[in-house]
Amino acid sequence: MAHLWTLLLLKQSLTMILEDAVKKATDVRQKVCEWHSPEELKELLDLELRDSGEPEARILERCRDAIRYSVKTTHPHFFNQLYAGLEPYSLVASFITDALKPSLYTYEMSPVFTLMENAVLRKLIQTVGWEEGGDGLFNAGGSMSNMYALNLARYRHFPEIKELGNSAAPRLAVFTSQECHYSISKAAALMGIGTKNVFVVPSDKRGKMTPSALEEQIESVKSEGGVPFMVNATAGTTVLGAFDPIDEIADICEKNKLWLHVDACWGGAVLMSNKHKLLMKGIHRVDSVSWNPHKMLMACLQCSAFLVRDKTHLLQRCHSARASYLFQQDKFYDLSYDTGDKSVQCSRKPDAFKFWLMWKALGTSELEQRVDRALTMARYLADEITKREGFRLVMEPEYANVCFWYIPPSLRDLPDGPEFQEKLHNVAPVVKERMMKKGSMMVGYQPHRGQANFFRMVVISPQVSRQDMDFVLDEIHSLGKDL
Amino acid sequence: MAHLWTLLLLKQSLTMILEDAVKKATDVRQKVCEWHSPEELKELLDLELRDSGEPEARILERCRDAIRYSVKTTHPHFFNQLYAGLEPYSLVASFITDALKPSLYTYEMSPVFTLMENAVLRKLIQTVGWEEGGDGLFNAGGSMSNMYALNLARYRHFPEIKELGNSAAPRLAVFTSQECHYSISKAAALMGIGTKNVFVVPSDKRGKMTPSALEEQIESVKSEGGVPFMVNATAGTTVLGAFDPIDEIADICEKNKLWLHVDACWGGAVLMSNKHKLLMKGIHRVDSVSWNPHKMLMACLQCSAFLVRDKTHLLQRCHSARASYLFQQDKFYDLSYDTGDKSVQCSRKPDAFKFWLMWKALGTSELEQRVDRALTMARYLADEITKREGFRLVMEPEYANVCFWYIPPSLRDLPDGPEFQEKLHNVAPVVKERMMKKGSMMVGYQPHRGQANFFRMVVISPQVSRQDMDFVLDEIHSLGKDL
Repeated sequence: MAHLWTLLLLKQSLTMILEDAVKKATDVRQKVCEWHSPEELKELLDLELRDSGEPEARILERCRDAIRYSVKTTHPHFFNQLYAGLEPYSLVASFITDALKPSLYTYEMSPVFTLMENAVLRKLIQTVGWEEGGDGLFNAGGSMSNMYALNLARYRHFPEIKELGNSAAPRLAVFTSQECHYSISKAAALMGIGTKNVFVVPSDKRGKMTPSALEEQIESVKSEGGVPFMVNATAGTTVLGAFDPIDEIADICEKNKLWLHVDACWGGAVLMSNKHKLLMKGIHRVDSVSWNPHKMLMACLQCSAFLVRDKTHLLQRCHSARASYLFQQDKFYDLSYDTGDKSVQCSRKPDAFKFWLMWKALGTSELEQRVDRALTMARYLADEITKREGFRLVMEPEYANVCFWYIPPSLRDLPDGPEFQEKLHNVAPVVKERMMKKGSMMVGYQPHRGQANFFRMVVISPQVSRQDMDFVLDEIHSLGKDL
Repeated sequence: MAHLWTLLLLKQSLTMILEDAVKKATDVRQKVCEWHSPEELKELLDLELRDSGEPEARILERCRDAIRYSVKTTHPHFFNQLYAGLEPYSLVASFITDALKPSLYTYEMSPVFTLMENAVLRKLIQTVGWEEGGDGLFNAGGSMSNMYALNLARYRHFPEIKELGNSAAPRLAVFTSQECHYSISKAAALMGIGTKNVFVVPSDKRGKMTPSALEEQIESVKSEGGVPFMVNATAGTTVLGAFDPIDEIADICEKNKLWLHVDACWGGAVLMSNKHKLLMKGIHRVDSVSWNPHKMLMACLQCSAFLVRDKTHLLQRCHSARASYLFQQDKFYDLSYDTGDKSVQCSRKPDAFKFWLMWKALGTSELEQRVDRALTMARYLADEITKREGFRLVMEPEYANVCFWYIPPSLRDLPDGPEFQEKLHNVAPVVKERMMKKGSMMVGYQPHRGQANFFRMVVISPQVSRQDMDFVLDEIHSLGKDL
């Protein structure tokens, strides 16, 4: 049995974690971050690893410091990424996972989590609307899920590539919008497809892929001897939160016999909402979907589902290596429960559990309400931006991304033109620096399509209120009004 | 601030987790697993996700059940995989990570964990013996680290592949031993290299790659128009725990200008031991190393380091996509601390922290002692096997894998031959089934190189004693003596 001191150490640490990393970290009166430069922080942390160990009390101090100087992503004023907030049930599942250290190779190793993953996948597949079912896996992040889609699409078109490699195949081409996530391009590089064979389809003003442009590009690639095999549509783009028109893209893919993948890592949550699911109209027609419940649905990091409509074990056939020390064929149970060979990973964490437990606790109805509530809040923020002097929307939001410029008083009378744009471009980085150093909030910004830097607010957590939205705008003004 | 009920829920859950998933799970008097068939377990767990949520007390019950029916990988009688045992400091770091939900894209998002990762990588690089330093990253598992090695090696030889894909390059060839991990082949499939371009080099009787055979294969591939670009050597093979002769392989790689990667996911721990590090003689000469501290060094799952000797930002150049919304170039701090673009993942967990904290607490000296102790224990087990009637070593161990057959009394008088081998082959699966159903322990078995199924014992945890080793042998006899 674990030594008594082990249990005492864990008990003490957990008390501290609850106090510092949960209670304080989510307290709106506390800082989101305590900024230090890398040089300062190195000194504060004493990072060096030495021959002798340190006493327990010192280690607890170090834990306290690690928490203190970390960004509080569960803080109500953290809006910097596409995830935020604290979901207590999911956190409990994380804690259990850590203590048990399971790994999802085989049913005998992870009976409970194998079945839970299966149950969550089935429910997600049902939500997507594939009436005949499908297959899937939880992955270490959405980038990996998107890579799986590319690999399955390639394998369906050219199964011989698995053995012979890309040099035995024609030049393959994948299509995705200019607003898509960078993981498509990273995957193409890694997979030997090549980033130049990722054809970037223009999007319209709202950030949605233009179907006619997609059709033209497919024709043009074909005429140059390239072989189209997949289209990636995005449901909820990273910056603008735009939804590509899946139904129209599906028509084009059917016509051209192309695999249609939807990167719904960020936007998939609308499928939980009867009010908003039309944003993904046509999703039941696609071949595969990436969907990260750790984003809008607030499961703990990481929780990334990859879903595929195929029912012919494509996932298994595409990825399997049949290691005999793990996937013995003379076992005493139904081997279809050994899911490990579907994955490119060997050890794999039971991330589905973090979603399963919160879903059990909240029910589908509460998940739906959360999504609706977040989008209402985004709407409120956009309205406030429209009303306030010195704020300007980049566009009307249709999802939870609210993109806007803050125009300091000194720029308000300048006519739009290169000088104004250049000055405006410098505002967001300075405001960001000031909010970080003050620790009052974290909101992202970026340049985008040649436009001046703008803020991207992302509204997720049900713990966030209208007051918090007002705070963000007040604070940006207060930090930037002298610029 | 988190609601009071959230804190109460977490407190209650943590008390339960400490009791059930730590104390009970590591209690030798408890079962390692409580076996149920998938059908039975589905009923016990009530997996369905419904519209309405469930009350908190019911959710706590569900947590208790999830723990109860899970395999206890921290139990002293769990020897089924290449990881085991409970490392309390590392577990504390896991808990902190879960509560804080950090992600390692940028310094501003994860200041503490970026610096800690850096500190651990530098220390590991020093341990490997790259005097001029190097670069690296923690990954979601060793399979991904091995894939990174393939990608860097390919990129160094043919940087144009990143843009143009493999079809613009000659047929690339990678070499690895017949005993290597299956991730090499999975990576080759995914990366468009093709599994048939993974050339399997024979190993000697002890499972070590035969350097002369490697040389012959390289020549033969070249003569057929293939282009060798990488050799993967294994330090600590999965089944036998064999170490490929790195120094001799490095000579061959230097001569042929090939990237030399060492998959030391399992065996890397010997580098901590002055007594045993000779097993990896020549490691300072290689180009890259995969090393999983979550295996022999007992960091919590997952903790997988990828190290590369290159100092020209190869990792960054090979993997970067320069997403402008994440890696803005007008930030107010030194951008070299934004490590996210070195990775193929987007969200990435701060796994180095789990190793950093335990290393701080234990010191290098204690880590060394643990490795030495585990290998002494493996030696003890091998000696016992040699002494006992009915047990036969597959080979003398040089690392922590002890491979052996159990020969039930009924087979002991049979002459070696097809009949004996066939009967022997059926012993391990039945013993395994019985131990699972009894829940007394978990030990792996596999067929290997045409040999009858044998057990593979893996000794890791310092919580394991000679008594536990004796127990394993007694229990196997007791479960299998009637066969």
